[in-house]
Amino acid sequence: MTYLFNSPSDFAADAVAGLVAAHPQHVAAVHGGVVRSTQTPAGQVALVIGGGSGHYPAFAGWVGPGMGHGAPCGNIFASPSTSQVYSVAKNAENGGGVILGFGNYAGDVLHFGVAAEKLRAEGVDVRIIRVSDDIVSNTPENHRDRRGIAGDLPVFKIAGAAIEAGADIDEAERIAWKANDATRSFGVAFDGCTLPGASEPLFHVEKGQMGVGLGIHGEPGVRDEPIGTASEIADLLVDGILAEQPERTEGGYQGRAAVILNGLGTVKYEELFVVYARVAERLAGAGITPVRPEVGEFITSLDMAGASLTLVFLDEELEEHWLAPVDTPAFHRGAMPPREDAPRTSFWTAEAAEIPAATEESRTYAAKIGAVLDLFESVCAREEAELGRIDAIAGDGDHGQGMAYGSKGAAAAARAAIEGGAGARTVLVRAGDAWAESAGGTSGALWGAALTAAGRVHSDDAAGTPAQTLEAIRAGIDAIQRLGGAKVGQKTMIDAAVPFLDALGAQDPADGAEASRRIVEAAVVAREAADATAQITAEKGRSRVLGEKSLGTPDPGAISFSILMAELGAHLAD
Amino acid sequence: MTYLFNSPSDFAADAVAGLVAAHPQHVAAVHGGVVRSTQTPAGQVALVIGGGSGHYPAFAGWVGPGMGHGAPCGNIFASPSTSQVYSVAKNAENGGGVILGFGNYAGDVLHFGVAAEKLRAEGVDVRIIRVSDDIVSNTPENHRDRRGIAGDLPVFKIAGAAIEAGADIDEAERIAWKANDATRSFGVAFDGCTLPGASEPLFHVEKGQMGVGLGIHGEPGVRDEPIGTASEIADLLVDGILAEQPERTEGGYQGRAAVILNGLGTVKYEELFVVYARVAERLAGAGITPVRPEVGEFITSLDMAGASLTLVFLDEELEEHWLAPVDTPAFHRGAMPPREDAPRTSFWTAEAAEIPAATEESRTYAAKIGAVLDLFESVCAREEAELGRIDAIAGDGDHGQGMAYGSKGAAAAARAAIEGGAGARTVLVRAGDAWAESAGGTSGALWGAALTAAGRVHSDDAAGTPAQTLEAIRAGIDAIQRLGGAKVGQKTMIDAAVPFLDALGAQDPADGAEASRRIVEAAVVAREAADATAQITAEKGRSRVLGEKSLGTPDPGAISFSILMAELGAHLAD
Repeated sequence: MTYLFNSPSDFAADAVAGLVAAHPQHVAAVHGGVVRSTQTPAGQVALVIGGGSGHYPAFAGWVGPGMGHGAPCGNIFASPSTSQVYSVAKNAENGGGVILGFGNYAGDVLHFGVAAEKLRAEGVDVRIIRVSDDIVSNTPENHRDRRGIAGDLPVFKIAGAAIEAGADIDEAERIAWKANDATRSFGVAFDGCTLPGASEPLFHVEKGQMGVGLGIHGEPGVRDEPIGTASEIADLLVDGILAEQPERTEGGYQGRAAVILNGLGTVKYEELFVVYARVAERLAGAGITPVRPEVGEFITSLDMAGASLTLVFLDEELEEHWLAPVDTPAFHRGAMPPREDAPRTSFWTAEAAEIPAATEESRTYAAKIGAVLDLFESVCAREEAELGRIDAIAGDGDHGQGMAYGSKGAAAAARAAIEGGAGARTVLVRAGDAWAESAGGTSGALWGAALTAAGRVHSDDAAGTPAQTLEAIRAGIDAIQRLGGAKVGQKTMIDAAVPFLDALGAQDPADGAEASRRIVEAAVVAREAADATAQITAEKGRSRVLGEKSLGTPDPGAISFSILMAELGAHLAD
Repeated sequence: MTYLFNSPSDFAADAVAGLVAAHPQHVAAVHGGVVRSTQTPAGQVALVIGGGSGHYPAFAGWVGPGMGHGAPCGNIFASPSTSQVYSVAKNAENGGGVILGFGNYAGDVLHFGVAAEKLRAEGVDVRIIRVSDDIVSNTPENHRDRRGIAGDLPVFKIAGAAIEAGADIDEAERIAWKANDATRSFGVAFDGCTLPGASEPLFHVEKGQMGVGLGIHGEPGVRDEPIGTASEIADLLVDGILAEQPERTEGGYQGRAAVILNGLGTVKYEELFVVYARVAERLAGAGITPVRPEVGEFITSLDMAGASLTLVFLDEELEEHWLAPVDTPAFHRGAMPPREDAPRTSFWTAEAAEIPAATEESRTYAAKIGAVLDLFESVCAREEAELGRIDAIAGDGDHGQGMAYGSKGAAAAARAAIEGGAGARTVLVRAGDAWAESAGGTSGALWGAALTAAGRVHSDDAAGTPAQTLEAIRAGIDAIQRLGGAKVGQKTMIDAAVPFLDALGAQDPADGAEASRRIVEAAVVAREAADATAQITAEKGRSRVLGEKSLGTPDPGAISFSILMAELGAHLAD
C-alpha cells in the first residue's frame, strides 16, 4: 500500500518538492525534475539520468558532485515526458554536451530520444546510454537490448566519476557503455507494489511462491518458483549472474567485481544482509573479490517485496571510477575534494508562447475539437481501472493511469487554448504536447505525437471539413507508426490502428455523416483486432519482456485505441 | 512479511554476518555484535549503542568514525543480553570509559544496566544514556521516562561527534543528555510488521485507520484515527512536537532544529518526501529553520508501515555536533579528516571456563535439574504462539519467542554442563546465563537471574533436598523482584510471583511429596493472579506504554510464570 499522499496525480511532483526542501545543498527544482543546486564547471559534460518516479533513490537521489547533473522525474513508473527531459537537460547543459542515461524501456527510449533530437537541432552534443543489465530480459548476445534495473546505480556512478575526473563527452560515453556492458543483474519478487490511490497491488505473487526475474515497474517475474531460504535465493542469483562472468584477461577483468544487493522496498535491511552473507561466501568460492559492495535500497519500486543482485565485472578503469568520491542526497562515498561551488541562481524556463491569431470559423471548429477531448478524458477516466488491470498482467501496469492523465492534460490544455482564442490547429498541437507531458510513458508520447500530427492537418484560419477529420486521424496513426517503430503482429496499439486505417479507407467522405459512419465501422474492426492480440506473444512494446506470460491477455494500448475510436465515431454521429 | 531468512532463530546473527561481510572497512564481528574494524585512539571514550535487531540502520549501521564504537545486536526487537553488551563494551573500551546508549525500554535498561555493573566492578567508568524522545509515551515533565524511537539517531550522532572532537566521558555524557532532552519524536503507523518465520503481523491497523503514537517494536499506536492526507499527517506530527518547543533564549535555542522524517520500513521515500514538503512549509511558518534535515529510513521496524517526525531543538553546541562529519555503514556526512586507522587485529573473547569438580550425588541431582529444564523448553515451545499473541495486544510481541529461545538455550547449556560432569549449582548457574543470553528481553534477563540465584542455593558437592527446592524457587523470585524493580499491581510477572511465594509458605517441607504439593497449590494461586492482571492498567514493564490499551489482556510474563510453576509442580509430583 501507498499510505502517504495528497492527490495521486500530484504524488510525483509533491515528492520532488519535498526532496528539494530536504536537500537544498544538492538539488534545485526545475520544470520536469531537478538539477544540481550548485554551479558546475564550464565545459563539463552534463549527466542527465532519469526515468519514472517511485524508484528513489533512483534517480533524483543521485544528483550531485561525482554523479548526476540533473534528473527528469516522470510520473510513478512512467517515463518523463519529452518536455521534462528537455527542460532538465537544458538546465544541466553547461558547454560540454549532455549524456542522457536511463533504463532501457520503450517509453524512456522514446521520450529521451525525442528530447535528444530537439537538443541536437539546437546544436547540443547529446549521447544516449540505455542501461540494460537484467539478464532475464534477453539473451547474453543481445545484452544491450535487455531492460535496465539496479545496474543504473553503478553505470551512472561510474559515468559520473569519469566526468568528475575530467572526461570529455566521447570518453564519458565510452566508459558508461563499458560499465553497462560489464554489468549483470538478476532479481526475485515476493509481492507487488500498489500505486498511490490504488487499492490493489499491480500484481500478486502466490503465497509461498516467488517471481523469478522481477521488473522494477510492478512487472511480475518471468516464472514462479517456491520461495527458498535466503541462502538458496542467494545461490540462485549468484549462479544466474556467474553464468555470464567474462574471461579473466591481463589488463581486463581479473576477478574483482562491484556488488550491489538491492531491496525493492519492503524487503528490509536485515533480510538483505542475511542474503549477502551467503553471496559473499559464494563469490569467495568463485575467486571473486567484492569491491565496496552496497547492500540496501538503491532502486526501489514503491513498496514492492523483492531483491536483486548486481555484479559489475571490473577492470582497473571501472574500479577507479566505482570507488571515486560521490556526494548526492542518497549516495555518498569518501570525501569530495573541497571546491567552491557557488549556489546557482539562474535557471532556464520555457517561455509561454503566445496563441496565434485565428478566424471565427476555426475557433468555432476548435470548440468542437475541445468537446472530443473532453469526451476522451471522461472515457479514459471510466476505463482507467480496467486498462490498468490488463496492463498489470503482462505489462508495467501504468497504461490506465497514463491514458487518464494524458487525456485529462490534453483536455485542460485545449480548454485553456480555446479560452485564449486559439484555432483548430493550435488547440490540437497544444493538446498533443500536454498529453505527452501529462501521461509520460510510451503511449503518452505516441498519443501526444498523434494529436500534434492531427493538428497539422488543420489550420487556424478555417473550419475543418469531414475529409480533414479522416485525414487528421490518418496523420495521427501515421505518427504513431513512424515514432513507435512497431509492426503489425508485435502486440502493440498498431495491431488495432492499422486494421482501423485499412477499414477507414483512403477516399474522401461525401459528408460528415459518412465520415462518422466510417469511423464507427472501422472502430468495430479495430476492437476485433485489439481483442485478437490476446493470442499474440509479445515481441515489442510494453509486453515484450514478459513474452509467453502475455498470452491470453490483449494489448491494453490496442484496446484503449479501439475504445476511443468507437467513442469518437459515436460522438460525431450524434 | 519477512521473506528472506534461513532459520528464524539465526536471523539476527546471520544479518550481523552479512553486515560485516559488506562493510569490512567499518565493522568487525565480536561476540554479541560489532565494533569498529579499525583501531581507535587510546583514551577515547567508547560509545556503545544498541538494542534489538530489526531496526537497521539502527544500531550496527552507525558504528564508525564520528558515531558509535560498537553495537551489541539483540534478537529481533529484543534487548541484547547482558553478555552481549558486556562483550561488545569490553571490545570497544580503550581507556576512556564507556557510554552505553540505548532506547529507554525495560529490557535494555536491565541488560545494559547489569553489564554496566559488571564493567564497573572491573574498574571501567561506565555512563548510561537512555534515549526517550517519544512524546506519546509520557508527559513532558517526565521526558526522561519516555521510550526511545527515532531520537536515537541525533542523540548518538551528537554524542559520537563530541567524542570525535575530544570530549572526555563527563563532557560526552553531558552533551548526550542535553541532546536527548532537546529531542522530540511523534509517529503514526498504518500496519504492523511480521517477525521472520511468523505468518501474521504483530498487529494490524484497521483499513483506512492509522495508529497514532507508534512504537518501533510492533507496538500499536496509543489511539486509532482515520488516515489523513500526507499533509494532514504532517500537520498532526508537527503540531504534536511544536507543543513542546522550548523558549528561545540568547545562547540557547533560537529556532534552529535538526529534523528527521523516519520511515519504519514499508512507507517509501517518495511518500516521506511528500510529507516532508508540508513539514518544511509548517516549520517555516513557525519560524523554525531545519538544519541538515534527514528524510529516509534510519530506525526501522522490519516491514512496518509507518513514519515518525523528530526535531532536535538545537543550540550552537548541539548544531556543531549534528553537522560534524561521520562515516559509518549507513550514515555519512561530510568528510572525516584523513587519519591512519590501522585495521584492528586483536579482540577480547570470553574464555571457556572449566567445569568445577562435583560429587556423584550432586551430579545425579544435576541430571534431575536438567530434566526440569528440558520440560521448560518443551512447555515454552508449546506456549510460544499464545504468549506471543497476548504480548502483541499490549506489549511488543516478543514474549513467546523470548521464552522459547531462553528455555531452549538454558536446556542446551544444562545438557552440555551435565555431560561435562557438572554438579547442581554449576548446571543451574550456566543454564541461567544461557537463558539470559538466548532470550534477550526483560523476561530473559529476569529468568536468567532467577536460575542463577536458584543455583547458588545448591552446591556441587551434594544432592539437593526438598527444602532446597523451595529455597531455590524463593531465591529465584527474590532475584526477579530485586532486579526487575516492579511492585505488585503494576501488571508484570511479579503479580503472579508474589502470590505464588505467599502460598508456597516459608517453612521447610517434610518431604518431596509435600514440596511438590505446595508448588502445585501455589501455582493455582499464581494462575488466578496472572489471569486477574487482565483487569490492571499497566504501569510498568512491557505493557506500560500502552496504558489503557492493555486492559482486558493479562500480562504474558505473569501467565508464563504460572504455567511453568504448574508444570514444575506436576513434574516433581510424578
